[in-house]
Amino acid sequence: MCQLFALTSSSPVSADFSLRGFFQRGGKTGEHKDGWGLALFSRGKADIQTHQSAAYNCQRASYLLETKPKATTVIAHIRKATEGHISPENTHPFVRELWGETWAFAHNGDLKNYYPENKSIYKTFGQTDSERAFCYLFNCLKSRFEHKPAIGILAEYIKMLSKEISQHGTFNFLLSNGTILLAHCTTELYWTQRAFPYGRLELLDTQLSIDLSELNDKKETMIVIATKPLTKGEAWYPMGRGEIRAFENGHLAYESKINTLFTKAPFDWGVAWQSSQVIIS
Amino acid sequence: MCQLFALTSSSPVSADFSLRGFFQRGGKTGEHKDGWGLALFSRGKADIQTHQSAAYNCQRASYLLETKPKATTVIAHIRKATEGHISPENTHPFVRELWGETWAFAHNGDLKNYYPENKSIYKTFGQTDSERAFCYLFNCLKSRFEHKPAIGILAEYIKMLSKEISQHGTFNFLLSNGTILLAHCTTELYWTQRAFPYGRLELLDTQLSIDLSELNDKKETMIVIATKPLTKGEAWYPMGRGEIRAFENGHLAYESKINTLFTKAPFDWGVAWQSSQVIIS
Repeated sequence: MCQLFALTSSSPVSADFSLRGFFQRGGKTGEHKDGWGLALFSRGKADIQTHQSAAYNCQRASYLLETKPKATTVIAHIRKATEGHISPENTHPFVRELWGETWAFAHNGDLKNYYPENKSIYKTFGQTDSERAFCYLFNCLKSRFEHKPAIGILAEYIKMLSKEISQHGTFNFLLSNGTILLAHCTTELYWTQRAFPYGRLELLDTQLSIDLSELNDKKETMIVIATKPLTKGEAWYPMGRGEIRAFENGHLAYESKINTLFTKAPFDWGVAWQSSQVIIS
Repeated sequence: MCQLFALTSSSPVSADFSLRGFFQRGGKTGEHKDGWGLALFSRGKADIQTHQSAAYNCQRASYLLETKPKATTVIAHIRKATEGHISPENTHPFVRELWGETWAFAHNGDLKNYYPENKSIYKTFGQTDSERAFCYLFNCLKSRFEHKPAIGILAEYIKMLSKEISQHGTFNFLLSNGTILLAHCTTELYWTQRAFPYGRLELLDTQLSIDLSELNDKKETMIVIATKPLTKGEAWYPMGRGEIRAFENGHLAYESKINTLFTKAPFDWGVAWQSSQVIIS
């Protein structure tokens, strides 16, 4: 298993504070020591950095955080290898081009016996279930939409595919082109919004605190997502089973209403838009 | 390992909604199927119920929830046996008398090679590390305080003992006499406050939602604590490593300021009250 992290902001910011906590889980406060990766999106450009080492004491990771690289969208991943050996081609985030844009994908979970037919454009380089799922998603998206659809349609289509993939196991993932950030949850994923008035935050994984009001101006707003909450001092919201959320520029842009994984009946793409069966206690 | 749940409220309420989600983790959405236990405190009386079965499909648990038993304080536990066999004497919560009151204790975590000298009043009946730790706590409390101390002093003393015990492993626990509810965290414990204006909540573990505004009046306020958040629709706050919180009648009464587990120097009871070393990023 692995852990996921993402940040989307209304203006370029450095995620180094949150990442310092997150990277502790890469070998110190967590067992995810088989590699780390970062996708930093800024002004339409994606900067991808990965390394096959424990993030918490990796010199490359430390140096990177010290430079406080600014980005509007960040995806980070720390890996505990379950399928596929410890190598560059198996280290998240995975990157592909779609609709003329660069997309980064990071996955947490195990997909058992998952070998979809990836005979179309997107093929795997490594041996992970994660990359196979990413390629499958992108082959489906490419054949379904000639151009990038509206964010709600994109999210619901990916949610439908994710429900199918989730039958093989846990499929928490993050996907971004630098403006849209999609988060899908089957077991564990939290999000929090940082906006004015800012307060004091304390990392859960190391003794480090920050006063956001000294760093951010009133207009800035950002969303932080993580497999498990990273801080004390702010409210974290758990995502539900089968839920997808789409964020844009530090704001929630789309949220699915249905916990489709609980639905026993065969999934019907046509009625999915309107169905929302909830039992009142 | 196990999972913990607690509720404290300003007036008697039924925790059946939250418990329905929590009990799913006892064998269905979680692996904690080796027993469950409930302590229901109401008007100074403690009602303790335990059973050596998976909570999610236990008839006794279902019947209990259907009766919607009201209480001002609830502690619940679902067990995954790691030390001590599956039997009544090893099922949480454990109960003892102290200062003329009944206290219930439930623990999540493993304490490796932990065999404290429990030669004083409080002795174990079962074979768990949890019960040994509970007896050790109570032997120390009994010899240190002739009468129940103020809540802050009680919390800080228990925190100091917990730091010592935590050297053997994970020591997340809940302790209550029906009015005070103490929560100690070394790895994972969340809390949320439910107060006016109430909203709609959805369980993460089963398809069930509730509109709290239909059930609670404006004056009611409650705190819910769990190993992992139980609901969508409300904010959950993670507790930090080595943190203790004391709640009373649905309100936060005391919160420790120091993450003592990060402190490398030997713990000094005398200076603990004032030390609070925090690095500013």
